[in-house]
Amino acid sequence: MSQTKTKLWYLENFNLFKELDMKTVMELSQNSHMSQSRKNQVIFFPESSNDTVYLLKEGKVKISRLSEDGQGVTLQIIGPGEIFGESGLMGQDHHDNMAETIEPAVICAINKVDFMDFLDRTPKLNRAVNQLIGNRIRKIEAHIEDLVFYDSRQRILLFLERHVENFGTYLTDLWEVRPFLTHQEIGEITATSRQTVNQILNDLKRDGIIDFSRQYLWLKDRNRLKSLLPV
Amino acid sequence: MSQTKTKLWYLENFNLFKELDMKTVMELSQNSHMSQSRKNQVIFFPESSNDTVYLLKEGKVKISRLSEDGQGVTLQIIGPGEIFGESGLMGQDHHDNMAETIEPAVICAINKVDFMDFLDRTPKLNRAVNQLIGNRIRKIEAHIEDLVFYDSRQRILLFLERHVENFGTYLTDLWEVRPFLTHQEIGEITATSRQTVNQILNDLKRDGIIDFSRQYLWLKDRNRLKSLLPV
Repeated sequence: MSQTKTKLWYLENFNLFKELDMKTVMELSQNSHMSQSRKNQVIFFPESSNDTVYLLKEGKVKISRLSEDGQGVTLQIIGPGEIFGESGLMGQDHHDNMAETIEPAVICAINKVDFMDFLDRTPKLNRAVNQLIGNRIRKIEAHIEDLVFYDSRQRILLFLERHVENFGTYLTDLWEVRPFLTHQEIGEITATSRQTVNQILNDLKRDGIIDFSRQYLWLKDRNRLKSLLPV
Repeated sequence: MSQTKTKLWYLENFNLFKELDMKTVMELSQNSHMSQSRKNQVIFFPESSNDTVYLLKEGKVKISRLSEDGQGVTLQIIGPGEIFGESGLMGQDHHDNMAETIEPAVICAINKVDFMDFLDRTPKLNRAVNQLIGNRIRKIEAHIEDLVFYDSRQRILLFLERHVENFGTYLTDLWEVRPFLTHQEIGEITATSRQTVNQILNDLKRDGIIDFSRQYLWLKDRNRLKSLLPV
């Protein structure tokens, strides 16, 4: 397949663009740049210029911030079918956050000004983008709620359930997410130390609720996990 | 002034609508309902139907959540010129949050479907709404950062600086926010106990940095407050 055809195929299969007519999708395709990224590749740094919107077709991307002393906090994990770097659409010239792949990814990049032009001309696309942004806000608000209301063990349990809900595949008798994350990464999502993550995951493994490695997370007893979650 | 004329005046002076032509503002006005609210009036409850977008013309509105055991967390304080209840524009049928005035307010309510229709027809308005939502996201992300990176004293200092930045008026030799909040409310914003808020505010008062009552906050030495903030 030519590069253009591949891009077109990806865009056509992107949920966000499902309801657009072929002409608009082709135009988007001509204005976009698709690339494959390795694991742990930085897509944008904080303070960098915010002139591109990214569509994630495959893989996962971590959006994070660093404090002055280098402590990290993961704000969200973006999955296939989602957009990121969308703050440029909302009037921000520079990134506050960092975006980095946490597994090999296929990313489509579209110039912000071009994309805004599509949004202006395509109310349906505009609504779809608004919905994605709305989901984003709800996830971030839930994150705040977790930090305020729950202790580290509860935050890790909630993280596991949501991670499986967002990214899991059901395989006969267990849920699998592949690849899994490092304990450091889970710590940065749940605002917990790596040591605490390690201890809690090992407790859950010993109790037969999960199994895991860097390559996979298996949720073997989802009902039991759910019974442990805060109401 | 007639009710319609008053509404029109309010909408014309609403930042969001500054660039719209008079015809569109009049149409918006005809489709909206303006009301005065007392302090501590609930505008919407969690789980209630999400069919209205609110424009805050005067006063402040607190957006919060309650945990199962009744613990509160304030997600944001909305000020004049901002919209709220906008999650309906982003595909959410029911509210996750609660909105409540924390001082007397003037609020303009517009049916969600009508407002979305205006957005579809008015790219400029759409962009302006997107910018407001972008600011919202940045504030929420900063909130997460605070919870992860800073201790309760630092969170309260940051809250004071931002509260003055967002809502303060400079009066010759000090910054004033009027009315101020209760210690309970500040606790719910900063995820801190009322007792801790009380102690830290009194320390700052004793050191001559602030003065306060329920009616006002005076920031008397903003440079000194800034010097205490985390870098």
